[in-house]
Amino acid sequence: LIGYLNGKFDDLERLHISPLDRGFLFADGVYEVWMCYDGRRFADEQHWQRLKASLAGISLPFPNLQGCRSILDQLVERNAQQKGTAGIYLQITRGVAPRKHAFPEATSPTLFAYSFPFQRPREALASGVSVHLIAEMRWTRCDIKSIALLGNVLAKEQAKGHGAFEALFVREGHVVEGTHSNLFAVRRGALWTHPLGPFILGGITRAHVLQLARSAGMDVREQALTVEELFQADEVFLTGTTTELMPVIQVEDRSIGDGRPGAITRELQRLFWKSTAFPPPLEFNELP
Amino acid sequence: LIGYLNGKFDDLERLHISPLDRGFLFADGVYEVWMCYDGRRFADEQHWQRLKASLAGISLPFPNLQGCRSILDQLVERNAQQKGTAGIYLQITRGVAPRKHAFPEATSPTLFAYSFPFQRPREALASGVSVHLIAEMRWTRCDIKSIALLGNVLAKEQAKGHGAFEALFVREGHVVEGTHSNLFAVRRGALWTHPLGPFILGGITRAHVLQLARSAGMDVREQALTVEELFQADEVFLTGTTTELMPVIQVEDRSIGDGRPGAITRELQRLFWKSTAFPPPLEFNELP
Repeated sequence: LIGYLNGKFDDLERLHISPLDRGFLFADGVYEVWMCYDGRRFADEQHWQRLKASLAGISLPFPNLQGCRSILDQLVERNAQQKGTAGIYLQITRGVAPRKHAFPEATSPTLFAYSFPFQRPREALASGVSVHLIAEMRWTRCDIKSIALLGNVLAKEQAKGHGAFEALFVREGHVVEGTHSNLFAVRRGALWTHPLGPFILGGITRAHVLQLARSAGMDVREQALTVEELFQADEVFLTGTTTELMPVIQVEDRSIGDGRPGAITRELQRLFWKSTAFPPPLEFNELP
Repeated sequence: LIGYLNGKFDDLERLHISPLDRGFLFADGVYEVWMCYDGRRFADEQHWQRLKASLAGISLPFPNLQGCRSILDQLVERNAQQKGTAGIYLQITRGVAPRKHAFPEATSPTLFAYSFPFQRPREALASGVSVHLIAEMRWTRCDIKSIALLGNVLAKEQAKGHGAFEALFVREGHVVEGTHSNLFAVRRGALWTHPLGPFILGGITRAHVLQLARSAGMDVREQALTVEELFQADEVFLTGTTTELMPVIQVEDRSIGDGRPGAITRELQRLFWKSTAFPPPLEFNELP
């Protein structure tokens, strides 16, 4: 795989950073992930806007936007991922400097990026997954897509240990989001998801699905669910850039609905993949 | 400066890590800092114990202890820092692996270390410093000395913007700790500091000063102070490995006591430096 680091394209294995990079010492950086369908970045502008907001959140000046776009274009071309689905990862840190907490003066940011082939998990998207609940322990600026992801890592690992696809954080009795996804539930015919704010990342797919649901005339509520409300939801699903729209059929040891992806989840999956202008991973008329 | 990375000693500038190191992508690692007096690591065993606890906190197996000790010994020797005060930094991450939140299998940890000359800030230690209060936004596992330090970085930078030496975090009305130091206050003759638990790092110097105070017959209370109690404290100081014992004479725009380091702070400074068996940075009989 070809990657990019501070002006240079090379094999990912040959790219190296200093251990004095503030990304390595302090998690002093932010990142963004795009999904590409046949080489086209989905919701491209929205990802740049979120990156801008994340950088502003940590007071790091935004680099040359046009230059960044061109880097991502070249990565996809060089990696011959114009066909099919692929991901692009971009990380910006405050750069290399002697270790001191406060911002260094006159240090250039580090810009690291690579693209990767990504096969969508057809089986899971068709059949649904289970999720594990975990007490929130992360910071209160989850709206910043920072690389300070240790809490997410520990929660995801715990979910994996429970055989679950994702961990959902519970803050003061309310389910907020997953370690790399947003949460939706269908309850009494309405679509619920946690409101924007400091406790969740403003997911691009989250916003897109909300728009699709509203356009389809659904009753949408950006309101947090309690754990009990989640257990009793008729349908549950997760959204994310590479997660797309993933049905949840089990929360802890309790089945959601009849234990199969629900009708509204299916309809939103259909609308979502239609909007990508790319073949969906599922044949809807073959689904149970 | 000579550093160490995964088996190799070299100029710090020539050491390089992969951008796929989980320390860089996820802040998936922990660190430790030692102070050396004439080449001797102060409270050495306590630092290893804390490192062990931090590693256990993120479920990362502890590497060969004897080998680690030898690395630190060699760093100090090679950097010719046997005389005077110096610091040693050691960081362990979960290693290099394709980017996925959950722990990778069969990946070796990354071990990075370097020592650095450190001149103690005589003026500040003599005259005292001011501190800035900031709403807590970090995660609830501050007892783990993790490299997910973005919240500490942002707070310290904000303190710097206010001309303060350190930022103190306030959680639910109580002052917990600084971005790289623990907080103490003298109040009605007793010495107060926040109790151990998930909201603060168990400082080695904090524990040492508590022991010194108890041995000197002081009334010690491991109890959190409210912001108002801090403002009205008779004396305030910070502790930390390289911060040692730093008087605080101002919190926000309010003076503490008579605006000069207090008598108990001075006595604890004296006892602390005596215990280091190394010349103190201050001549006590010349102090105001």
